[in-house]
Amino acid sequence: MNEAPRKLLRSLFDAAVEAAQPAVGLPSHLPPPPDPSSGGRTLVIGAGKASAAMAKAVEDHWPGPLSGLVITRYGHAVPCDRVEIVEAAHPVPDEAGRAAAARILDLVQGLTADDLVLCLISGGGSALLSLPAPGVSLADKQAVNRALLTSGATISEMNCLRKHLSAIKGGRLAAAAAPAKVVSLLISDVPGDDPSSIASGPTVPDPTTTADALAIIEKYAIDAPAAVMARLSAASRDPGDETPKPGDPRLAAAESIIIASPQDSLEAAARVAAEAGIAAHILSDRVEGEARDVALVHAAIARQVASRHQPFRPPAVLLSGGETTVTLRGHGRGGRNAEFLLALALALEGAPGVHAIACDTDGIDGSEDNAGALAGPDSLARAAALGLSAPASLVNNDGYGFFEALGDLVMTGPTLTNVNDFRAILIED
Amino acid sequence: MNEAPRKLLRSLFDAAVEAAQPAVGLPSHLPPPPDPSSGGRTLVIGAGKASAAMAKAVEDHWPGPLSGLVITRYGHAVPCDRVEIVEAAHPVPDEAGRAAAARILDLVQGLTADDLVLCLISGGGSALLSLPAPGVSLADKQAVNRALLTSGATISEMNCLRKHLSAIKGGRLAAAAAPAKVVSLLISDVPGDDPSSIASGPTVPDPTTTADALAIIEKYAIDAPAAVMARLSAASRDPGDETPKPGDPRLAAAESIIIASPQDSLEAAARVAAEAGIAAHILSDRVEGEARDVALVHAAIARQVASRHQPFRPPAVLLSGGETTVTLRGHGRGGRNAEFLLALALALEGAPGVHAIACDTDGIDGSEDNAGALAGPDSLARAAALGLSAPASLVNNDGYGFFEALGDLVMTGPTLTNVNDFRAILIED
Repeated sequence: MNEAPRKLLRSLFDAAVEAAQPAVGLPSHLPPPPDPSSGGRTLVIGAGKASAAMAKAVEDHWPGPLSGLVITRYGHAVPCDRVEIVEAAHPVPDEAGRAAAARILDLVQGLTADDLVLCLISGGGSALLSLPAPGVSLADKQAVNRALLTSGATISEMNCLRKHLSAIKGGRLAAAAAPAKVVSLLISDVPGDDPSSIASGPTVPDPTTTADALAIIEKYAIDAPAAVMARLSAASRDPGDETPKPGDPRLAAAESIIIASPQDSLEAAARVAAEAGIAAHILSDRVEGEARDVALVHAAIARQVASRHQPFRPPAVLLSGGETTVTLRGHGRGGRNAEFLLALALALEGAPGVHAIACDTDGIDGSEDNAGALAGPDSLARAAALGLSAPASLVNNDGYGFFEALGDLVMTGPTLTNVNDFRAILIED
Repeated sequence: MNEAPRKLLRSLFDAAVEAAQPAVGLPSHLPPPPDPSSGGRTLVIGAGKASAAMAKAVEDHWPGPLSGLVITRYGHAVPCDRVEIVEAAHPVPDEAGRAAAARILDLVQGLTADDLVLCLISGGGSALLSLPAPGVSLADKQAVNRALLTSGATISEMNCLRKHLSAIKGGRLAAAAAPAKVVSLLISDVPGDDPSSIASGPTVPDPTTTADALAIIEKYAIDAPAAVMARLSAASRDPGDETPKPGDPRLAAAESIIIASPQDSLEAAARVAAEAGIAAHILSDRVEGEARDVALVHAAIARQVASRHQPFRPPAVLLSGGETTVTLRGHGRGGRNAEFLLALALALEGAPGVHAIACDTDGIDGSEDNAGALAGPDSLARAAALGLSAPASLVNNDGYGFFEALGDLVMTGPTLTNVNDFRAILIED
């Protein structure tokens, strides 16, 4: 096995993760603190896989007093002095998250126009900042969430539904904090970096409606609990139950700043490739679609580069970000990146000189312990030598098992950030 | 509606089709005729959507006597003087095709080493040259074919199964013609242009085995008739029932020449774009995958070009070929190109300055009367004004109905050739 291409691909992924670290991108975007003479307070709130690391970055650089509470995923806490860190469940919300979300909603009550709220939002925040709308139980929301995660719905569609089943998302948190100034610092894990989609936009006006949410339930034939349908039906008749819309005066003082994004991380990886003398080409920072079909298109482009030197001359690296989906059919293990990579290896049929890495930048591909995996020209042959059938593994959604057997999993542990999927394909000369 | 981008995209498609015409690519690849003193004859056989047009091109340029029989799709005949043209059904074989295939197999019996067989093969030949293996009825093969076409199987997988249920494919036709010299002139409609995959390779050694065919039936849970399973089980036990494998001496004098390919057509389209002052980038000539997911990746790349000028600077045209698949869920009308384009338009969300065309180069998208369709930034808005929901049309696999309502179908009639799908996306400056 040739180690050099693997090392290069791993270094590209590491650069992508590093660029997304809160300590790198956050400090320069901090707003000025409230005027001390006004008596205004600074309150830090937030949720996401990176929220504790973001709170630490704020603490390390904030010139004045602050206090607050952020929610992060189990295992993602980092010690903070002034901001309380609460751990909760992801991707399926739990009571710890619900209770902490309720406390955050309490914290922003009664603020004045002199107060400043720093809201630290990152991927995973949607599940972690989970406070059901009136009449809906956490179990109801969990049932909908579980169904959504295997439905094939896009993250935008999932977030639309979540906003309309929440007491805190879709701008409701910022509305509750009015008239305080709310500055949201965001790490984007959504296609297009739309703040209203990141963690279901708790501080951002919501362009989607209850009618949209109902349409998504119908589109994917989500088997929603009766309380969920009752809530959505009621909300569709009462404008007061809608999320704040663009132009809502309660959100006039709310501001959103992206401090790290998929594109930033792809650019960082491209610079590392360039330093190694290999031109990197960013196909897109926002690829969506079924992982195995997305893999077929990536494989087709890689083979065009290898065989016809189009649209890029080898050596070249193809980079892409975004978030694929997996429609579960089998019972194997593995997230969307392992599934993508297994389908890619199959489609490449051992094409010489083509190596690839696919990882989740949060360090956790799906619900496993790996960030992703590596594949190369010999992956299929090595698997066959182990008696492992790549097509059967793909049918069984067992990308984890496949790459685990090859010793080709990428293990990082939680990276404390999340700018979504990272894919790099190296086509050697 | 801005007509200029549509005219440009249509001219790219027309150039792609023109480059794939037999009259353009075939004559220069004709082999020398048999030595008149040897008494050797020239026999023209073949099958495919282009076979009549190919026979005409042979007649127009062949220096000596010839005779023969080719099978083409209903409506695809062109008048020939010396080669008999038989029309038959596609994509589901019929009795006309079966009878003509049996006659072709008869024609090649008893040839000598001085005889020359010109075998004219093009896309669609697999269904048109349909002669069931012993014990299998045409109805049995039709049942398997119908199941395959909606199974999500790749064209390579479909062809593997077809070869092992055929008395003429997978090299069996060339084996029957031995010891005559067999020169196959092929128009490629398969990813990678592998002659053994084009029309299921009647004159090419078959690397696939009966065991592979059985695995495909299992993979896609094809409900195969008992006679089919019996034939495959029997063939898996009798090496004499296998297709000729690479190295088979009966195929030693067989030669395959690709006279037109997806890549040739994409290059022709790229030249037309360049003449219009717009750089064209060929992403791949062999894109496979579910049409709607392939569309998501194309949309993601187009948006990267539009918003970040990566990996190409606008104005630019993205070109791709290959063959997508559609897993039928709804009951609408339309082929894979209309489905691709509808999903693309949805994913582009009306992105300004982005226009696209997706067509089958054979002029027939699926089983409709259109080659494909055009989409632009205003497609979704115009549809909405007509009360037409793009997401609902996609759920219903009704790309034809969607673009028909907009007046945006591309109608060419049969083009008498086939180099598979053609996709072009124009991103304006």
